[in-house]
Amino acid sequence: MKFRRSERLVDMTHYLMNHPRELVSLTWFAQRYQSAKSSISEDLVIISDIFKHQGIGMLKTVPGAAGGVKFFPMVNKEQASEFVERLCKAVADPDRLLPGGYLYMGDLLGDPEILNEVGRHLAAAVADKKVDVIMTVATKGIPIAQAVSAFLNVPFVIVRRDQIVTEGPTVTINYVSGSSKRIQTMVLSKRSLKEGANVLIVDDFMKAGGTINGMVNLLEEFKASVAGIAVLVESEHVEERLVEDYISLVKLSDVNSKEKQINVVKGNYFSKMTNFL
Amino acid sequence: MKFRRSERLVDMTHYLMNHPRELVSLTWFAQRYQSAKSSISEDLVIISDIFKHQGIGMLKTVPGAAGGVKFFPMVNKEQASEFVERLCKAVADPDRLLPGGYLYMGDLLGDPEILNEVGRHLAAAVADKKVDVIMTVATKGIPIAQAVSAFLNVPFVIVRRDQIVTEGPTVTINYVSGSSKRIQTMVLSKRSLKEGANVLIVDDFMKAGGTINGMVNLLEEFKASVAGIAVLVESEHVEERLVEDYISLVKLSDVNSKEKQINVVKGNYFSKMTNFL
Repeated sequence: MKFRRSERLVDMTHYLMNHPRELVSLTWFAQRYQSAKSSISEDLVIISDIFKHQGIGMLKTVPGAAGGVKFFPMVNKEQASEFVERLCKAVADPDRLLPGGYLYMGDLLGDPEILNEVGRHLAAAVADKKVDVIMTVATKGIPIAQAVSAFLNVPFVIVRRDQIVTEGPTVTINYVSGSSKRIQTMVLSKRSLKEGANVLIVDDFMKAGGTINGMVNLLEEFKASVAGIAVLVESEHVEERLVEDYISLVKLSDVNSKEKQINVVKGNYFSKMTNFL
Repeated sequence: MKFRRSERLVDMTHYLMNHPRELVSLTWFAQRYQSAKSSISEDLVIISDIFKHQGIGMLKTVPGAAGGVKFFPMVNKEQASEFVERLCKAVADPDRLLPGGYLYMGDLLGDPEILNEVGRHLAAAVADKKVDVIMTVATKGIPIAQAVSAFLNVPFVIVRRDQIVTEGPTVTINYVSGSSKRIQTMVLSKRSLKEGANVLIVDDFMKAGGTINGMVNLLEEFKASVAGIAVLVESEHVEERLVEDYISLVKLSDVNSKEKQINVVKGNYFSKMTNFL
């Protein structure tokens, strides 16, 4: 079937959204739609303009015989402000408050629309970095890792606290939890990470950073490198932060259990982010 | 800014893909693009035709003043066959084999493209059911739950094996693991599920079905109903299956550790699926 422009635009938009950061050759599109490469080029200009205008992302053209087009999901500053403010409000909801000043976050970590936006915003912040794989720790980091993974189009691996039979040979390390100063254990399947991999570490929450620091140490055992660290929520009042270079969307500045008040401000996202659309 | 048709088609495709099963009024689109509702209707016909032709999904129009359009992600039979065959091959890779006949599945459960397709195919199979929330058990069910959640546009909740402080009050049940016949524990945060909710249970792997049966029992405690059960892989040779009505993409028919052979066939997806595109 020969596609008309209007039909190509719908299918190309769908295709590019499902294959972020993947090089698609113009020849491949031309064959898919039985259209001339010059028409495909014109289509891509239209898509590129709208993606930019609507804050969806950027199309980058790679010239030459082995060239093509790559879609990079990005965010613009206005959208990001709106979303992070919405997140702050949601986190500040006093209904989240649990005994001991802990916050219930299960609703946010299971909301597909919020996860989609969290993934998009965190992925956009590391758009210029080489990331081969995303790493997180079970359980609550998983939804964040998966959401970012979809936008970076790289796999994610899950560090566990316990050994299970379906992981095969594992590497185990001990680390000191930052706040409770207790010795804890972390386990990662040996086959889940290749030597030399560039790893983006993500998690739902960072206090002193002991868990994330543990993941950094684990990466050393795998001879892998840290490509970046990104968290949904960081906690402000920390005696000694174990992790220096990270991105956070939301910062928990104060939890007052007695007054039932949670004070939340924007994380360091806007000071760290250099490439808004 | 007034949008031209070509521009509207790109943005509408993006918007509908990010808001599956959500009613979008034509007036809202008309305002967004400063275009006539009749033009929007024509755009939707083009999108609908291509979504159908390319096996992406179906647009359903809801008539009347409170009407609009809803995008239902679906799959066609040919794509589904191809994908499930690809999955079968991937699962049958002898490198997965671990001592005791267990299979390493971490690579598949962390692959964004595979998860996207798994989510799309399982969501399509329950497209005509009323699902309010998806439930799974930590850890390996989570990626499946999140993937389906994105296509059904409903939240997911995570059952745990242990109690943690950030869950608030919980409901705990004991259940008997189907294969080992051991008593196990399941915990779900009380606030994660509303009374009367229609719940789709998903998991990565089902043998006798003890874990899934446990989740069914847990739902009773919440006065919630089972809307459906879907798993990535089921195991064929089971003395007594505890769960009758379920959908599986892949069926493990035999694992021969000595010969390093994993025999995998298609699951019951094609016999259960009634609404291919």
